Amino acid sequence: MATLENIRAFLLSLQDEICHSLTQADGKASFREDPWTRAEGGGGRSRVMTDGAVFEKAGVNFSHVHGTMPEKIATRLNLPPGSFFHATGVSLVLHPHSPHVPITHMNIRYFEIPGNTWWFGGGIDLTPVYVDRDDARFFHRALKSTCDRHDPEYYTRFKKWCDEYFFLKHRNEMRGIGGIFFDHLRGETEEEKSKLFSFWKDVGNTFAPTYCDIVSRHTGKPYTGAEKKFQLLRRSRYVEFNLLYDAGTKFGLDTGGRIESILMSMPPVAGWEYDYHALPDSKEEETLKLLQPKDWV
Amino acid sequence: MATLENIRAFLLSLQDEICHSLTQADGKASFREDPWTRAEGGGGRSRVMTDGAVFEKAGVNFSHVHGTMPEKIATRLNLPPGSFFHATGVSLVLHPHSPHVPITHMNIRYFEIPGNTWWFGGGIDLTPVYVDRDDARFFHRALKSTCDRHDPEYYTRFKKWCDEYFFLKHRNEMRGIGGIFFDHLRGETEEEKSKLFSFWKDVGNTFAPTYCDIVSRHTGKPYTGAEKKFQLLRRSRYVEFNLLYDAGTKFGLDTGGRIESILMSMPPVAGWEYDYHALPDSKEEETLKLLQPKDWV
Repeated sequence: MATLENIRAFLLSLQDEICHSLTQADGKASFREDPWTRAEGGGGRSRVMTDGAVFEKAGVNFSHVHGTMPEKIATRLNLPPGSFFHATGVSLVLHPHSPHVPITHMNIRYFEIPGNTWWFGGGIDLTPVYVDRDDARFFHRALKSTCDRHDPEYYTRFKKWCDEYFFLKHRNEMRGIGGIFFDHLRGETEEEKSKLFSFWKDVGNTFAPTYCDIVSRHTGKPYTGAEKKFQLLRRSRYVEFNLLYDAGTKFGLDTGGRIESILMSMPPVAGWEYDYHALPDSKEEETLKLLQPKDWV
Repeated sequence: MATLENIRAFLLSLQDEICHSLTQADGKASFREDPWTRAEGGGGRSRVMTDGAVFEKAGVNFSHVHGTMPEKIATRLNLPPGSFFHATGVSLVLHPHSPHVPITHMNIRYFEIPGNTWWFGGGIDLTPVYVDRDDARFFHRALKSTCDRHDPEYYTRFKKWCDEYFFLKHRNEMRGIGGIFFDHLRGETEEEKSKLFSFWKDVGNTFAPTYCDIVSRHTGKPYTGAEKKFQLLRRSRYVEFNLLYDAGTKFGLDTGGRIESILMSMPPVAGWEYDYHALPDSKEEETLKLLQPKDWV
């Protein structure tokens, strides 16, 4: 049954499992946990790993906030002001040390106004510093396989949504090589809700094995100072996306969530170089050309 | 006469003078100029210095864009859609190498819808990595003295405006120690316009001597790795302000200005540390406590 209680319990155990997998993949550091409460209702538990062997910074956040909906959000969602709401989810962003290991983001979230409406949202996307075509194919095939278990149309629909969502208009480039993204998935019956819940859980469970497989392909590979520098530039575009466009960041700031948990997604170090242009035929140029919607499967 | 032509000529020469002063203050690097044009009308000249002796990155931009106003901006400014507009200004952000030399920002701008409305805007503010009380007093006194030459109420009014504008709500802290900020300064008569033009020019002319004096007090002072690290953290909050709140950045992105010129304000390198807290009684803590509106004169 897709009750709020069951949804919350799944999220808590998913956070545990993901942190466990990432701790194993890292092999050196562990997560520090910060529980927090929100003055207006609810709270969360933030877990952060810093200076690991693989991860320079890894943040995996669970939150469940509730209370009267801030007016700004009620207006944006076209919902009656003053509604009582629940929003709960797990969200993570991982920043590896090595430019050969991709940055990644996963988030699954559930929103409910008791007696009025509810929906599921989520997504997984990959932001390689240098696009590796094998990784990209593997990643998209894993997501497609998860989607296909639930609905033959999901992958195409949610892959497109992701391509459109994680797009930096001002640079005319995607944040990475995409993945899947969905929001406001709702239904009329208990059965429809159960089906969506089941898909949504599957997305959450797909993350760790898929990403850790990619990590294992690249750990230990040496990298140069120039590659690290390009990573700082790619990370700065990550920052631009998150602060200029990201709906989750905006929602967090608008609902008065815990700042350090919302901005856990920021890279440990990022760099901006004025008027950067990749050298012709370099692998930097190749990557920048690949940051457009593309059929990776 | 405050004609568009005269205003534009002043801005071009101001950019020259400021770049000249900063080149002298740096003593090593020089500015590279990039002229650019905007497809819908107008353009600018961006000047950037990188890896100087004093400045890690210094961007001084002149722009004059014109054409039919984008709908988003017409709505925000409550102006008739489809209006023909001019927007011109000089804007600069300087990121010194040393954490002892403050980051600074200056901008003066003029907006006109021919036959309908016009206004002047601008401001100067200082973002020290470590607040130096002598610098802060000197800086605010210089701004007050400029304001007082034109109107005894300007300093109080524009200082307050600056305190409110350069404020990171989500962190409940100012970007720095403020300065002055003003916008939509307009009048009915030619005489009023001339007076405002004269004040506005004075603000532009105040920048270089005031800031270069502060630079000269601190160049050559040694600094530690820990101080440099704190600078990266202070710079990351600069990034947060500019991408989350800054009206100039939004205006630039909404009018399809040149991305590299709009984001010239970004620091060369910035760092985010999860849940940073300054040590008790450290100078980092002292600075963070001083990032609140304060009478520096």
